[in-house]
Amino acid sequence: MRRAVRLAATAAGRTSPNPVVGCVILGADGTAVGEGFHRGAGQPHAEVEALAAAGDRARGGTAVVTLEPCAHHGRTGPCAEALLRAGIARVVYAVPDPNPTAAGGARRLLDGGVEVVGGVLRAEAERGNELWLTAQRRGRPAVTWKFGCTLDGRAAAPDGTSRWITGPESRRDAHALRAQHDAVLVGSGTLRVDDPHLGLRHGVTGVPPLRVVLDRDGTVAPHARVLDDAAPTLVVTGPRAPKPVLPARHEVLRVPVTDGALDMAVLLDRLWDRGVRSVLLEGGARLAAWCAARGLVDRVVACVAPLLLGAAGRPVLGDVGAPTLAAALRLRLDEVTRLGDDVRLLLRARDLPGGDGGPEGGGA
Amino acid sequence: MRRAVRLAATAAGRTSPNPVVGCVILGADGTAVGEGFHRGAGQPHAEVEALAAAGDRARGGTAVVTLEPCAHHGRTGPCAEALLRAGIARVVYAVPDPNPTAAGGARRLLDGGVEVVGGVLRAEAERGNELWLTAQRRGRPAVTWKFGCTLDGRAAAPDGTSRWITGPESRRDAHALRAQHDAVLVGSGTLRVDDPHLGLRHGVTGVPPLRVVLDRDGTVAPHARVLDDAAPTLVVTGPRAPKPVLPARHEVLRVPVTDGALDMAVLLDRLWDRGVRSVLLEGGARLAAWCAARGLVDRVVACVAPLLLGAAGRPVLGDVGAPTLAAALRLRLDEVTRLGDDVRLLLRARDLPGGDGGPEGGGA
Repeated sequence: MRRAVRLAATAAGRTSPNPVVGCVILGADGTAVGEGFHRGAGQPHAEVEALAAAGDRARGGTAVVTLEPCAHHGRTGPCAEALLRAGIARVVYAVPDPNPTAAGGARRLLDGGVEVVGGVLRAEAERGNELWLTAQRRGRPAVTWKFGCTLDGRAAAPDGTSRWITGPESRRDAHALRAQHDAVLVGSGTLRVDDPHLGLRHGVTGVPPLRVVLDRDGTVAPHARVLDDAAPTLVVTGPRAPKPVLPARHEVLRVPVTDGALDMAVLLDRLWDRGVRSVLLEGGARLAAWCAARGLVDRVVACVAPLLLGAAGRPVLGDVGAPTLAAALRLRLDEVTRLGDDVRLLLRARDLPGGDGGPEGGGA
Repeated sequence: MRRAVRLAATAAGRTSPNPVVGCVILGADGTAVGEGFHRGAGQPHAEVEALAAAGDRARGGTAVVTLEPCAHHGRTGPCAEALLRAGIARVVYAVPDPNPTAAGGARRLLDGGVEVVGGVLRAEAERGNELWLTAQRRGRPAVTWKFGCTLDGRAAAPDGTSRWITGPESRRDAHALRAQHDAVLVGSGTLRVDDPHLGLRHGVTGVPPLRVVLDRDGTVAPHARVLDDAAPTLVVTGPRAPKPVLPARHEVLRVPVTDGALDMAVLLDRLWDRGVRSVLLEGGARLAAWCAARGLVDRVVACVAPLLLGAAGRPVLGDVGAPTLAAALRLRLDEVTRLGDDVRLLLRARDLPGGDGGPEGGGA
């Protein structure tokens, strides 16, 4: 299974909207006779690839796979059927498929007379599919809020200067985070003030995320850096805002305004429809507060720099409507890492599995 | 020397206003023949104790001592003279004495024909005397600002509730920090709102620090918890405030008001005169800002809890008068520790030695 998890990871960041999956086929004598992994949407599933490699040697053997084999007819046939046809006698999988249209593979295999063992190395396999699994559980893209701030929680000085609060290691980490997500998103204020580019730099490679900018009032400048021709950008605006004038290849999406802000819940649904399963929020304070107050933040990555700016500095998080301590938003601190002069904290919503080595809770 | 550093640590927290010092005497053949440590003000210095234990066996031997032997006539005679009288041939010490009235011991020993080696295991020995050394270098008590806050830098919710933002492990750590300092200090607002006790609890033992409360307007209630009879408390008030009415054994100290607040620089001088070499600031936001903006904070201990309170929450640090990022106060992050659900960060002023394992800068 460890080999299967490693195989799955080969395609990390390239399979969305599908999960990463790895599969190893053992022959009837227990030796590995084939392996495969899912390379991306429209490509064969890991089981199919591994069965093709194994050929006849799969008969009477064992399929070791990181995710419960699917039972549905999608763009590729159901893997459960393929395993049955190949004469597999035993299937060992790590993570049950939380996708309601895909689940049922284990049931189908049992009905076909195959021995099925689930949950093997589950925590490790879940980590490789964390964002995809979160998206399936939530029924919307998984959301990571990333920020850099001072020790006293300030994202900028009183005059708005913020480059650079965190050090080069933290900034490189921010680009690596972008590569892990399907989309990267900033609010109207950040778009106006910081004029961000949102592409991959600092030597980070991978599939560049879809750039999404909120522009409630439709005032984005056509020469904004995010509208360069590096990749298509989605400009999200309100129902009655003037239509932004965009260079070719960029697109406008209108969503309703709720409580004075573009409705992120609706936007996340629209992004899901486009195949986006994970979104990285990069700012600003009001956008993060809107999402956090509505339970739309699944993970937080905070890079805290050894600086103090004081109460006149700009807060990293807007008003979340928590009048008293009992109403504070509580997360779980899962990872603490030094990043140069800064410290990086990874926190997750408390109902999500994860953690840094402790026993894992189950998922779906 | 490692043994001497350990001996010195035996009296940690009990020697103020003196440093901790450990000494091992090796006979002429290199075997240990005596050891000692300084137990506190008015008690023999470590070298004297170790020489007494060694007796005649010290002749022609080596004294290994954590701090440069003193050359001045204080309440005890100068150790340099005692070492010369005992016929010590070689002195190995870790940290040069930064105290201008004590320094000169190495010079005196060299003049007396003794071989002298300084700087051995210096970083390790400095750690044991960190607060005392900082006080000597600054010419005022060393100041540690300790706070607990949310991930977004809030010390209380909008309604003032703050118990408990951090977890029990962090609160116990706060009491251990108190035991390491000669005095613990809170500002007028914290005194009024939180009614703190400032004693040692949570199973922490040691010499209870002097409790110091700022009470600019002289309005402390006689039944305030900090005025119980656990220990004497110093109530600091302004020059023209009404004299607070205090139960017996507590004391009032008047200091000037500067920029609207009790002048901490003057207060630190007054505390020095009383033998205080280290002060733990426990709140609140304005007091910390007053001190931080004037370079009066040497160390910061931050316990960050996995909570979000948002911009309506109360900031952990007031206005430090940094209008732009270049004016931010920059510290050095030296230690990162998990404390239950929280993370504890130790930061130091960048001109102080220290760090968690990297090469140490020198001191005085």
